[in-house]
Order: sequence, then structure tokens, then C-alpha cells
Amino acid sequence: MAIIRVELGARDQATREALIADLTDVMVKYGSPRESTQVILYEVSMDLWAKGGVPYSRRAARAAEGTA
Amino acid sequence: MAIIRVELGARDQATREALIADLTDVMVKYGSPRESTQVILYEVSMDLWAKGGVPYSRRAARAAEGTA
Amino acid sequence: MAIIRVELGARDQATREALIADLTDVMVKYGSPRESTQVILYEVSMDLWAKGGVPYSRRAARAAEGTA
Amino acid sequence: MAIIRVELGARDQATREALIADLTDVMVKYGSPRESTQVILYEVSMDLWAKGGVPYSRRAARAAEGTA
Amino acid sequence: MAIIRVELGARDQATREALIADLTDVMVKYGSPRESTQVILYEVSMDLWAKGGVPYSRRAARAAEGTA
Amino acid sequence: MAIIRVELGARDQATREALIADLTDVMVKYGSPRESTQVILYEVSMDLWAKGGVPYSRRAARAAEGTA
Repeated sequence: MAIIRVELGARDQATREALIADLTDVMVKYGSPRESTQVILYEVSMDLWAKGGVPYSRRAARAAEGTA
Repeated sequence: MAIIRVELGARDQATREALIADLTDVMVKYGSPRESTQVILYEVSMDLWAKGGVPYSRRAARAAEGTA
Repeated sequence: MAIIRVELGARDQATREALIADLTDVMVKYGSPRESTQVILYEVSMDLWAKGGVPYSRRAARAAEGTA
Repeated sequence: MAIIRVELGARDQATREALIADLTDVMVKYGSPRESTQVILYEVSMDLWAKGGVPYSRRAARAAEGTA
Repeated sequence: MAIIRVELGARDQATREALIADLTDVMVKYGSPRESTQVILYEVSMDLWAKGGVPYSRRAARAAEGTA
Repeated sequence: MAIIRVELGARDQATREALIADLTDVMVKYGSPRESTQVILYEVSMDLWAKGGVPYSRRAARAAEGTA
């Protein structure tokens, strides 16, 4: 059995489903029964997720302004 | 002390409160002081939660169509 | 379905099993199928878990010395 | 490297950014490279977060009514 | 960017590394830059992980005794 | 109130306590009552934590060999 939690940016439903299927296939490949494998996607706002002390939303804005 | 996190489908507020109270009672029964026991509910969309590589929303749709 | 994660202090196996059974019963009572309900216990060291800026291990030591 | 997750009540974006910057500074102070330090804020509804078996929203209402 | 957390049973290091590489490839395939993709494996003891109210260790023992 | 979870590499107890105190001070500065602020440190093995598809332990080994 396995529970996969992914924190990522927003995706559309088709991409979510393809991502979920592929992640599940990986776990099955390494011994986790398919029906005992769960995936939960946490789509996190770029205002709430930061690297290097700066939210990704602001990092993107700075990159766009060329002031990163 | 104890911190309980529950991932579950959406519930109304009355059910949430009853669920929270009962989960807390269980922890108190096993030695966690009531005021040091926290519960956080994470209500996850069925589009984002999958078992066997398929989101629960799609599993439900298939079951309804009789094509599960 | 529901996934319950509990952060708590160490327990013996008998207490773990009783705790798991009771938490599961609560989720079943509120609509989560038994076989779709999972519980994971995270037993956290008191050296690594803090309240008010002080690890619980040190809070306990202070309380024992009467210097809390 | 470090990944900090904070569960807290809602904050405005300016406070989020100041909080993120300060938390990151702490991790850098203790040896985590700035660009390998991530912070994710989980702003939890007071209806879904409980202490002592009662959601914080209801605890606040009771306190306001003087019936805590 | 993406952070994948996997709760699973214990694996040897070679399997861990293969699993990590494959999970990362999936995230890269769906738009997460490789160097911004992290994976953390939480290998959970079967005494602490339960389904249907019973730890997996006990479920396995019952299955072996034919008393599941 | 706030619950901070930090995934990081191993630290000695003195560093843990200083880190916990400083993180708590940050949350108090932004409105979380001290005694309602908890910190939990998850010290993750470098064999189980990966970036770019490679565990940190192996990344370090490659860097040491100059083959990163």
C-alpha cells in the first residue's frame, strides 16, 4: 500500500488524471497493490508557497520585470 | 497531547463538530489531555483524491454508469 | 473514505490498536466505509515537539523541578 | 535544505510575505541554504480546526457570549 | 515545482532510488522542473498503519493464520 | 494558534531548541499566542529525501567525487 501526496501548482482535470495514473503506475511497479495505492493532490497557491523567503508569485513577478 | 489530521470528503458543519468531538474523546480516553488535543479536518475534492490510479469522482461516475 | 494521521507521544502496541479501532469506529459512524478508512500514527519524540517555544521534554523537566 | 509547513489562521498577503521571510531567515541562521528553504502556508478555516473537541470558530463564539 | 511525499512500507535503498527517480520523471513530464521537484519517503511501520481499524501487521498475521 | 512542521536534516538538541524558540518567536510576532504555537521537527534521512530525482545522500557523494 502507498499514499502519495503531491504539493504542486494548479493543473486542469485532464492533467491531474494523467499525473495520478502515472504516479500510481510507478508505485505498482515497486510492489504497491493498485487498489491499495492512493494519490492526493494539494494544489497550493503561489502566494502561499515560497522558496528562498519569497513567494513563488512574487518570484515570477520579479522574473517578468527582470529584477529577480 | 495529540494532533489529529483527517482527510475526508466534505461534511456539513454539524457533522464536522460531532466528528471532532468524538475523535477528541477517543484521544482523551487514551491519555491525551482534552485541551492539548487538536483536530484539523482536510476536506479533499474527489477530483484530487484517487485510488487505484483513478480519482474518486471518476470512480463514482463509472459506478453510476455501471462501467466500474 | 478517510485517512487519519495522529501525532502523539509513544504508546505500547495494545494501546495503539485500541486507539486505532476506536478512531476508525468514529469515522465509520460518520459515513466512511470501514475498509476505506486508514489510520497512521506518528509517534513524535518529546525532544522534537514543542509548545510555547520549548520542547515538551524540557517543559516536563522544568515542571518536575518546579521551575515551569 | 528545509521545508516548513505552517497551519495558521488566514493572513493578508503582506503579513504572509513578512512571516515567510522571517521563518526563512531562521532556517538560514541554522544552516539551511536560503534557496533550498521552502515555506508553505496552510490557512485553515476555524470551522475545521478544533482544540479540546470544539472548533475554534465555536470557541470564539462562546468566548464572545461569555459562555466559554 | 512539486513536493511528493510517499507513505509506504520499508524498501531497500536501491528500490528507494529507482522509485524516487521514476516519481520525479512523472512530475517533470507534467511540467515540474527537475531541480524543483522533491520526493520524501516516509516508511511507516506496519504496527502504526491501519486499514479497517486493524494495523497491517495484524492483518498480515491473520491472513497467514487464515483468520482474516 | 499555529502549528509549524519542519522537515530538515538531523540537528543536535541544542540547535533544535534554539531553532524551535526562534520559529516560535516569529509566529508570536505575527499574532499567534505563544502557548498556542507548536513546532514539530521531522528530521529526514538523506537517503529518503531527494531533489531532481536523486537522494541528497547520493548528491553529496557525487559532489564529493566531483561528479555531480
